[in-house]
Amino acid sequence: MKAVVFNGELRLAECEKPIPLHGEALIRVILAGICNTDIEITKGYNNYTGILGHEVVGIVEDINGSDKSLLGKRVVTEINFGCRNCSWCASGQYNHCSDRYALGIKRKNGCFAEYFTAPLDVLHEVACGVSDEQAVFTEPLAAALEIVQQHHIKPGDSILVIGDGKLGIIIALALNALNFDITLVGKHKSKLDIALSQGLKAVLLHDVKPERTWDVVVEVTGAVSGFETALALVKPRGVIVLKSTVNSGKELNLTPIVVDEITVLGSRCGPFEPALRLLETGKIDFTQIISEVYPADKAVEAINKSKEKGVLKVLIDFTR
Amino acid sequence: MKAVVFNGELRLAECEKPIPLHGEALIRVILAGICNTDIEITKGYNNYTGILGHEVVGIVEDINGSDKSLLGKRVVTEINFGCRNCSWCASGQYNHCSDRYALGIKRKNGCFAEYFTAPLDVLHEVACGVSDEQAVFTEPLAAALEIVQQHHIKPGDSILVIGDGKLGIIIALALNALNFDITLVGKHKSKLDIALSQGLKAVLLHDVKPERTWDVVVEVTGAVSGFETALALVKPRGVIVLKSTVNSGKELNLTPIVVDEITVLGSRCGPFEPALRLLETGKIDFTQIISEVYPADKAVEAINKSKEKGVLKVLIDFTR
Repeated sequence: MKAVVFNGELRLAECEKPIPLHGEALIRVILAGICNTDIEITKGYNNYTGILGHEVVGIVEDINGSDKSLLGKRVVTEINFGCRNCSWCASGQYNHCSDRYALGIKRKNGCFAEYFTAPLDVLHEVACGVSDEQAVFTEPLAAALEIVQQHHIKPGDSILVIGDGKLGIIIALALNALNFDITLVGKHKSKLDIALSQGLKAVLLHDVKPERTWDVVVEVTGAVSGFETALALVKPRGVIVLKSTVNSGKELNLTPIVVDEITVLGSRCGPFEPALRLLETGKIDFTQIISEVYPADKAVEAINKSKEKGVLKVLIDFTR
Repeated sequence: MKAVVFNGELRLAECEKPIPLHGEALIRVILAGICNTDIEITKGYNNYTGILGHEVVGIVEDINGSDKSLLGKRVVTEINFGCRNCSWCASGQYNHCSDRYALGIKRKNGCFAEYFTAPLDVLHEVACGVSDEQAVFTEPLAAALEIVQQHHIKPGDSILVIGDGKLGIIIALALNALNFDITLVGKHKSKLDIALSQGLKAVLLHDVKPERTWDVVVEVTGAVSGFETALALVKPRGVIVLKSTVNSGKELNLTPIVVDEITVLGSRCGPFEPALRLLETGKIDFTQIISEVYPADKAVEAINKSKEKGVLKVLIDFTR
């Protein structure tokens, strides 16, 4: 089968079709999405080598196990698989298992391939009313919903999402669909226009009033300077949700956090079922975020395209 | 009256006895405590000039207002006085009023004097069973209790307090008195012994296992490196409570906060009534933290003493 492999260099390779272990499913990939983490891995992040990819929608073709209920179903998959033996896994928090696997990120081949395998219990069936192009956004949408999983945002709270990259727009659209008062701020008018067209407020960064008035600021700039921008805009006793993972540091003085009793909340992967419920409502149109769809043969070109400035989500179609 | 004045240099001066404004009380000072913030002010922090001091116990000698109920009573005082006109003050959060006064810290003469004035509604009567030497710790004890005011610490949580300075010990003793599972960590055996003698666990920093296992880490080192120490010890999804205010920055990479979904909680001043209730129980002996008591005439020497390595709380007795 065709697969996108990274082992110091990125290439499209002919690999053996994987065989599901006990408790796993074999999934035939329909669409896969390219995430910034994939790009970071090609720069050395996490020292991962193997098949890339973790955003996907596909069809279950085989199951190694007695429960065959998902056979033939269209599914999306969570990306973290726990050891099943530790206290984190026992409490259902396998996302934080210290011995976890992560699809295409850590010790588990990913989904930029015609086929991949994943444990049955992290697969979620996609309702027939949800298109492949929407379903492939389930993973980042779940990451957006992790914010409300972790923090009680109140209906009256004012929320600023800073960063108009893929994840920033997805978070803004998701929280807007939950009826929160969202403003997206970024540096690219064309990206902010996507938010505007779906009924959100969106403002260019240099037009944001430099006032500390926001109840919640979601920092998803992907830049090391984002935290200080957030700190300059959140109100005393407010909450900064950190989503950016950056491979470099910056000199920071944390004293304003103490004086103004700010809460900083690190936020990563999120719950899939509410993400799928939200997709079913049709309240969000993710297709506007899709910059381009490449066939499998051009998967490497797709990843290179994804690195270009101004490009949002690039998908790989493994049925073509 | 005698007062400790800072206006670029620190000196004991003869000042006019203050006259309470409407709604204020005149308080005769019994004991005042020297805090690290006082020392920071003598180095230029906050650009404050005037009479120093904000930790105090005294007697209400005069009241400008119709409610005379506190006249002659022994009281302690909160240190933040709001504008009474903004939404913060209206919601009772005058500690975060942007136009606030702070006793001996911002736009209001402090308590290192024979007399000071303060609004009636921030004064709290001290029960007769509480000694002056205990009552003078009410303000930092309230700051310790702010942690449980902000965050729901569960009975089963493991809590590490890092930093064995005055506030670190006070926080450890306070949370221990609330029956939480506390370990104090620091660099000074003599200071940790105070915690040990009151039934706490206490460990030297270099004996702490470098494992990320603590549910809550309270960072009160007063050092710029404290945050990274906290990050290395808190467990995934754990909470770091930041208490240190440091006037310098450090290069930090916040990515571990995101990956491990850590909560960082800035924490400052706290509630006085629960602090006074806790003092009444007699569960904490703060007198062990008192390094020395100076008479008013030697107040400047007291502040200098307070700067010495290994010295904990220094008090000034304004009745002598």
